Amino acid sequence: MSSSSRVFIAIIGAGGVGKCFLSQLADLAARRPSPRLSLVYITTTKKAVYHKDYSEVGMTDALDSLAASTQTPLSIAETIEFLAAAPAKVVLVDNTSSQAVADAYPAILGRGISIVTPNKKAFAGSFQAWQDIFGAAAKSGAKVYHEASCGAGLPLISTVKDLVETGDQITRIEGIFSGTLSFLFNSFAPATPATTTGPSPSWSAEVAKAKELGYTEPDPRDDLNGMDVARKLTILARLAGLSVASPTAFPVESLIPAELASAANGDEFLARLPEFDAQMEAVKAAAEKEGKVVRYVGSADVATGQLKVGLQSFDRAHPFAALKGSDNIFSFHTKRYGSNPLIIQGAGAGGDVTAMGVTADLIKVLSQIA
Amino acid sequence: MSSSSRVFIAIIGAGGVGKCFLSQLADLAARRPSPRLSLVYITTTKKAVYHKDYSEVGMTDALDSLAASTQTPLSIAETIEFLAAAPAKVVLVDNTSSQAVADAYPAILGRGISIVTPNKKAFAGSFQAWQDIFGAAAKSGAKVYHEASCGAGLPLISTVKDLVETGDQITRIEGIFSGTLSFLFNSFAPATPATTTGPSPSWSAEVAKAKELGYTEPDPRDDLNGMDVARKLTILARLAGLSVASPTAFPVESLIPAELASAANGDEFLARLPEFDAQMEAVKAAAEKEGKVVRYVGSADVATGQLKVGLQSFDRAHPFAALKGSDNIFSFHTKRYGSNPLIIQGAGAGGDVTAMGVTADLIKVLSQIA
Repeated sequence: MSSSSRVFIAIIGAGGVGKCFLSQLADLAARRPSPRLSLVYITTTKKAVYHKDYSEVGMTDALDSLAASTQTPLSIAETIEFLAAAPAKVVLVDNTSSQAVADAYPAILGRGISIVTPNKKAFAGSFQAWQDIFGAAAKSGAKVYHEASCGAGLPLISTVKDLVETGDQITRIEGIFSGTLSFLFNSFAPATPATTTGPSPSWSAEVAKAKELGYTEPDPRDDLNGMDVARKLTILARLAGLSVASPTAFPVESLIPAELASAANGDEFLARLPEFDAQMEAVKAAAEKEGKVVRYVGSADVATGQLKVGLQSFDRAHPFAALKGSDNIFSFHTKRYGSNPLIIQGAGAGGDVTAMGVTADLIKVLSQIA
Repeated sequence: MSSSSRVFIAIIGAGGVGKCFLSQLADLAARRPSPRLSLVYITTTKKAVYHKDYSEVGMTDALDSLAASTQTPLSIAETIEFLAAAPAKVVLVDNTSSQAVADAYPAILGRGISIVTPNKKAFAGSFQAWQDIFGAAAKSGAKVYHEASCGAGLPLISTVKDLVETGDQITRIEGIFSGTLSFLFNSFAPATPATTTGPSPSWSAEVAKAKELGYTEPDPRDDLNGMDVARKLTILARLAGLSVASPTAFPVESLIPAELASAANGDEFLARLPEFDAQMEAVKAAAEKEGKVVRYVGSADVATGQLKVGLQSFDRAHPFAALKGSDNIFSFHTKRYGSNPLIIQGAGAGGDVTAMGVTADLIKVLSQIA
């Protein structure tokens, strides 16, 4: 079998997204005879499964193999050597959110190993790191795709790339990039007020409910600080042509009351949050007075280079106001699209749809390297 | 120069989309050194420009060269022979809506010539033609991309492909696929009624206005018969896995009063349309009575295989109700996306955004063949 009809897959990470990806990968390999996909390496932080002669690790029972494995993970440097010496082209799938793995992308790509990943860290770090990654890929010809680093499986990064590469000018990117904050504000300040009687729930009650439903990080402050939104905005703005220094290089409005920044943990934070409900109630009331609703939005004005993340008010007929559940929405204003932006919305988080972004990227890479 | 670093481009059609594409192509070729893009053939129905030795036709002055040319177009058979004998890989860009060119796709692809096109005819004809096209491409390895055959530059076809290829199940596709009908109903039955005094314009007045603004075909019946919507729905439903026989194989509600089907031309049609305003007014009033607005929608229920095109009523808070201008909106319900669909909206017509879909496809083909 020639090397061109076979591609080796290496996977780092077997958490929520990793498990869904494995299932999609096994399905893909079964449906597509060419190129033949061989899983040659899979690792968590604790265990790994691989063979020194690159013989295949079964995809369908890879999780069982990991559980039973006595092999320890290779270091990143060893991983690179192992994969670079493989007798076929290799795609590394980084299903972690590890900074250490992200830091190794330039070295990995430099050795001709392609990468697909939902890991935001690599693309929302320093601008130098961004340049190093894409510079290394351009030099070696290895591919790097990261659709799921923003909005999970929604076709955002591919769309921004298409717009830019075909010569359109993106003038403004704006949207609701956090599923958690989408859920919170869609409930707290709905565009169509519920018709049930009684007072609407307080902000702190909404946050507690979101946590109970699993929509927040274990410590909700990790959502409320806005940094996840800032990272996604950084990635999209860079793709649109802005040299954004980092996700902390522009104003990000935190929804954590200053007094609670030092709360020992998420539980203590939630216990004390009701003391500050009046603040958010006032913000909501001010918007309502203008016939609007409040939403937590990221925006990049490409012409002026200004990025910001925080609360904004929108007319009830605005697409941002009408969002449902924990959906994300992204609007791209461009020269060609004129006064009405190109809008993409839907679930922006979740194992299956995130893995779908990774798998779709893998298919694109395969079409180019195999 | 090796053949792998050079790709020949042949273009059929230099109308509205064709002109915009030429401009984007020249820009792309100037920005991307590799692969080197050489325009070797361009033709309208009347004139052509090419050299028997495949030497380049200048991209930036191709329209002037066409105007000054005394060369007649090659027949389709001759075009295929000319391109198949070229000393480099060839991408044929079909910027026409010609059935004759579409009919030749299997033969073109069979000779290893890739195709990118906004031409709906090839993909919304018989199911046999669809199978012939993709069968020929699979056999020869030539690529065929047609993003702009539906919704212009909106990333619809690529998204449906990603969903299907990663193993998601599309359960329902629904949307407003016609820019013309979007404009008509957004004006005739707005979700947020205008606050100006006086009666709202009649249906026939809206149609006349749309024609004046250039939003309709020369004969508005070519929009009002719903066939353009049926063709787009056919394409999307086929990509989702349904073997749709043809765009006339399912119910399509025509908005042309039966009495006016035989009007001699668009002007006579428009002159008599006011006689039937009461019909559309009644449809609008019935929807309003339920607090809804009427929209012209295409939908495919993938599980049951049922497709239909016609009028439907939607709550004022529904994304279809809130559409603006002549925007299109497409919603994809899938197993993974669950209760809230993936939605894509924006301009679905226009030279620049249609050409963008073609150019983005060309870039994808180049990444695979060069």
